[in-house]
Amino acid sequence: MDTTEDSLRKALAEKQSAVEGQGNAVRALKAAKVAKAEIDAAIGTLNALKLEKSAIEQQLQAAVSGNGPDSSVNREAFRQAVVNTLERRLFYIPSFKIYRGVAGLYDYGPPGCAVKSNVLAFWRQHFVLEESMLEVDCPCVTPEVVLKASGHVDKFTDLMVKDEKTGTCYRADHLLKDFCNEKLQKDLSITAEKAAELKHVLAVLDDLPTEELGAKIKEYGIVAPDTKNPLSDPYPFNLMFQTSIGPSGLLPGYMRPETAQGIFVNFKDLYYYNGNKLPFAAAQIGQAFTNEISPRQGLLRVREFTLAEIEHFVDPEDKSHPKYPEVADLEFLMFPRDKQMSGQSAKRIRLGEAVSKGIVNNETLGYFIGRVYLFLTCLGIDKERLRFRQHLANEMAHYAADCWDAEIECSYGWIECVGIADRSAYDLRAHSEKSGVPLVAHEKFSEPIEMEKLVIAPVKRELGLAFKGNQKMVVEALEAMNEKEAMEMKASLETKGEVEFYVCTLEKNVCIKKNMVTISKEKKKEYQRVFTPSVIEPSFGIGRIIYCLFEHSFYMRPSKAGDEQLNVFRFPPVVAPIKCTVFPLVQNQQYEEALQLANDMQGQMNWVPFAITVDSTSSVTIRERDSKDQIRVNVEEAASVVKSVTDGQRTWDDVWSKFPHHSSGSTED
Amino acid sequence: MDTTEDSLRKALAEKQSAVEGQGNAVRALKAAKVAKAEIDAAIGTLNALKLEKSAIEQQLQAAVSGNGPDSSVNREAFRQAVVNTLERRLFYIPSFKIYRGVAGLYDYGPPGCAVKSNVLAFWRQHFVLEESMLEVDCPCVTPEVVLKASGHVDKFTDLMVKDEKTGTCYRADHLLKDFCNEKLQKDLSITAEKAAELKHVLAVLDDLPTEELGAKIKEYGIVAPDTKNPLSDPYPFNLMFQTSIGPSGLLPGYMRPETAQGIFVNFKDLYYYNGNKLPFAAAQIGQAFTNEISPRQGLLRVREFTLAEIEHFVDPEDKSHPKYPEVADLEFLMFPRDKQMSGQSAKRIRLGEAVSKGIVNNETLGYFIGRVYLFLTCLGIDKERLRFRQHLANEMAHYAADCWDAEIECSYGWIECVGIADRSAYDLRAHSEKSGVPLVAHEKFSEPIEMEKLVIAPVKRELGLAFKGNQKMVVEALEAMNEKEAMEMKASLETKGEVEFYVCTLEKNVCIKKNMVTISKEKKKEYQRVFTPSVIEPSFGIGRIIYCLFEHSFYMRPSKAGDEQLNVFRFPPVVAPIKCTVFPLVQNQQYEEALQLANDMQGQMNWVPFAITVDSTSSVTIRERDSKDQIRVNVEEAASVVKSVTDGQRTWDDVWSKFPHHSSGSTED
Repeated sequence: MDTTEDSLRKALAEKQSAVEGQGNAVRALKAAKVAKAEIDAAIGTLNALKLEKSAIEQQLQAAVSGNGPDSSVNREAFRQAVVNTLERRLFYIPSFKIYRGVAGLYDYGPPGCAVKSNVLAFWRQHFVLEESMLEVDCPCVTPEVVLKASGHVDKFTDLMVKDEKTGTCYRADHLLKDFCNEKLQKDLSITAEKAAELKHVLAVLDDLPTEELGAKIKEYGIVAPDTKNPLSDPYPFNLMFQTSIGPSGLLPGYMRPETAQGIFVNFKDLYYYNGNKLPFAAAQIGQAFTNEISPRQGLLRVREFTLAEIEHFVDPEDKSHPKYPEVADLEFLMFPRDKQMSGQSAKRIRLGEAVSKGIVNNETLGYFIGRVYLFLTCLGIDKERLRFRQHLANEMAHYAADCWDAEIECSYGWIECVGIADRSAYDLRAHSEKSGVPLVAHEKFSEPIEMEKLVIAPVKRELGLAFKGNQKMVVEALEAMNEKEAMEMKASLETKGEVEFYVCTLEKNVCIKKNMVTISKEKKKEYQRVFTPSVIEPSFGIGRIIYCLFEHSFYMRPSKAGDEQLNVFRFPPVVAPIKCTVFPLVQNQQYEEALQLANDMQGQMNWVPFAITVDSTSSVTIRERDSKDQIRVNVEEAASVVKSVTDGQRTWDDVWSKFPHHSSGSTED
Repeated sequence: MDTTEDSLRKALAEKQSAVEGQGNAVRALKAAKVAKAEIDAAIGTLNALKLEKSAIEQQLQAAVSGNGPDSSVNREAFRQAVVNTLERRLFYIPSFKIYRGVAGLYDYGPPGCAVKSNVLAFWRQHFVLEESMLEVDCPCVTPEVVLKASGHVDKFTDLMVKDEKTGTCYRADHLLKDFCNEKLQKDLSITAEKAAELKHVLAVLDDLPTEELGAKIKEYGIVAPDTKNPLSDPYPFNLMFQTSIGPSGLLPGYMRPETAQGIFVNFKDLYYYNGNKLPFAAAQIGQAFTNEISPRQGLLRVREFTLAEIEHFVDPEDKSHPKYPEVADLEFLMFPRDKQMSGQSAKRIRLGEAVSKGIVNNETLGYFIGRVYLFLTCLGIDKERLRFRQHLANEMAHYAADCWDAEIECSYGWIECVGIADRSAYDLRAHSEKSGVPLVAHEKFSEPIEMEKLVIAPVKRELGLAFKGNQKMVVEALEAMNEKEAMEMKASLETKGEVEFYVCTLEKNVCIKKNMVTISKEKKKEYQRVFTPSVIEPSFGIGRIIYCLFEHSFYMRPSKAGDEQLNVFRFPPVVAPIKCTVFPLVQNQQYEEALQLANDMQGQMNWVPFAITVDSTSSVTIRERDSKDQIRVNVEEAASVVKSVTDGQRTWDDVWSKFPHHSSGSTED
């Protein structure tokens, strides 16, 4: 707990009793009808005490709500300026705005869409292409069985309470959090002990079991914020958008809550595609969906968003990474578990040191932390407002080996934008079990070992005669049976001679006869080690990264005339929605209109990193936005010079040192 | 109707009666116990007739099922070869395959994903960037009100029938289509008249009203294909995936069936962003969803797909396009309405001629047809298997001014891949009405114009006294009268003092008295024209284009050794998933393994357009896949030469003429 705040609360409580004591004294003197001078003196003392109390109240108010450049008031004002600029310039549009919108859904307007497309192109370059990852593109519509296996059907929930009279829904933890924050910031009369309790509740909020959360809501007398009606007990609400696949209503499905599952279910094919070799990484960019109970935090917590996820599959017995040395010397803010537990803050650590000391679990995890750092800082995220925070033991899934979040500081506080987790073999095992298809890797033994194995041998001729064009689907379904299903079929075929068999891809039952398939268990010599790979998963919330990038790129500067404030996004060329503008200054009738337009747009365009001014017929000037430096370049070269810088092939410094400089006050700002 | 087939059916019917007649004759001779020689002679004639009948049957069978290179059998074999290659090389993967898949859902595997990403990047370059379109990115989750306004909630349906015993669902038109096709192809005994009737049903299938479709199913005795159970009457099934937004269950939503609506609802902001000027175009790339009843046609008819849509907003009184001259001289296969109606085939027409003759409704529509042609052919779609087919009157929505589909011929026939429609003002009007937000454009007059305007002024006090709670509905109904209705009411009120008036929202007549409303015509100065823009919509089914591209790029060639067939995709560099491979031939231990790998992969890699062979330390050769031509280039230049060609900045011919040629048999094939 903050010591200033703590001692101020104590001082306030003491002063409050002093005021009360002196008030009683004054009343007693009045009742005793003592001399007026004596009463006046006592009243003077009382007033002095009240003034002192008021001064402490002011200090405490400042301490809890903040008053520095980082205070919540200033943060909100800054955010408002950013968000207003973003919405005014159509970076974002609340979706379906003419129908009064839907909470948690936003469109990217033209410049926002260009930024997003640039961020994704850079992500693809930095991860998929440079690391030769296997990119896939799977549907959003996902059948229930997949998300049952992954655990989402049972566990992807938030606790919800309902207004008992109107039925309006609220997130239980949000109400409790709001109550605690409001009490701490606005009720100065609470004791230091009470304040400590509320702060403790805020700290453990995410881990509170349903019953305890409900008990706290009751204990604090929290009611529905809009109606003051009583609230129901909390209960879990599944956050997936549910739907139904096909017309029968019998195949439930969901809009995927993450893109990762599409990769896991394809592991077998991808491993084969990679020449049956580990390690390899697969990647996917796509939409994901979370049916938030009541979305808040504007652009950060939305119901539909773009994820970019990597699943790096690795032998659990060897998590080294060949390119790890390339990132080992990076040094940046890390926030390991022990630092969090002991109340310290994040500190600059060399990545190589964090890995060698075992703070980061293994080299591959470390490698990706380094690559994520490079990705985010190249995009324009401020190094000083980026930290890698390790999950505490209670935040991590039981199966995870280690997990780090890239958190970016913005006006909402430190926001998780990338999660980098070593999820061990959990996901592949879950899908192996549910589907009956082994999702495993192989390592050849130096000499063979004997083992028992299930063999399913469909008789294609008979199946072809019976099912014609559907033969392939039936064969695949038979081969996909797990051991239990296969042995049950074998038993039925032996006793009854035939069996009903559901083929998903045909969406119907077919009749399998004894002559159509042979099922047996055979002793086989094993020539290899078979194991489930571990997966290291860097998962990027693209929308959150983009929003933080907007905040980090934003600054205000006075216009040239000094009469208004210009809101500028200082985007690096790689993400700038427009890379370069061209201002023709040559005296020529046909350019006049263009020039006027260019002037009109200057206010709009101050986020463009380069401007070409055509002031002669043979050469042009190129101006860089932030330094305002200008160079002179031949007309034919201009486009390729700008392109080389915006593509990241060379830097402005590089260009600056190679071309003649140009100085002219006339076209600046 | 095909005349050969027609005459063969008649010949077959005649021969059949001849066989029957001769059979009767033989039986009669036997019954009359005539001499054996006479009977044998008659049997000889019978057998000869049977042989002749059999020959006609064979000819008819060939005529109906085809036997040329374009026959359905050969088409299916070709498709199987393409699809097998695509699936084996992981261009596609049936989604959730380990769970036996879901009909109509496919993943793009690594090379497919790269092709898709290249196609989308090229689309963005060709349309969004070159035309300065305003790209937006809206959510898939869409509230019901938006799709109610667009008409999808009420009309986005297919007719479905159910197996009356098992409940299995089928598309009614598919069953009827299958029945007709099967009858035509396999039942050689049907008369020419019956065949003509079945062909007519196939032709009008898409337009059959529910009742007629049901009647045909009954008339032909069509039953459930799997169980032979009777079928229900057809009824409409809405093809949108439904879901619920938020936890209350009170806000129904759908996964969008197209991306266009996201643009329409943003018209007002986009128009403002464009400086309140027309024309301008907005564009969107994104997922769309159709909950198909029973998806067929493999990769062409799926339940989730990527659309790229453009909405070009234009003044309905001026549909010229400044860049139209750039495409007017293009000449390609067009299939206007009148050619289809008169049974002719598509023919090469110069686009400028089609527009000037009014075959294509307007310049802007023509411009986009030309741009779509350039887009598809640059991607690698075969010019000879691409046609632009105009919608027939009965295919088009009532509001559409004109509509053309870019159809690509593949093994499934001519497939609609891009629709280019002039949808007039329909969509903006629909959302204006539903939302109450005017989605209109303005044109300032050079000087104000005096106009006569209808003014309907309900007297709310009187209406309130008369109709209490229904006042608002009556007011709205009065204000909604058109000029004719209002002037009639004015006349009646002046003569009779009151009038009966039907209020739709109350579903009854009310009595309007003279003191309740003032109707007049006023002269007003108008300073601007206010109108709803027309929209020209090119809409691209990206997945279909990619699939057709795969078929058009596919060919088989013998391996160098001649011992096996190589399946090759001859992708143009712009879409090739891998642009270039590098084969190190320098004798150096560290390259040995790479060389082995390169050899192993050659079979896999024959869709890569360029190969660099490193055969010296100072220079390399670059080989082009199709011509097998090789050039020699300095090591430092190699990457930029390949990049310039794959980016489309220069052609191979261009490079071929600039660099020294290299000829060596040793590294070929």
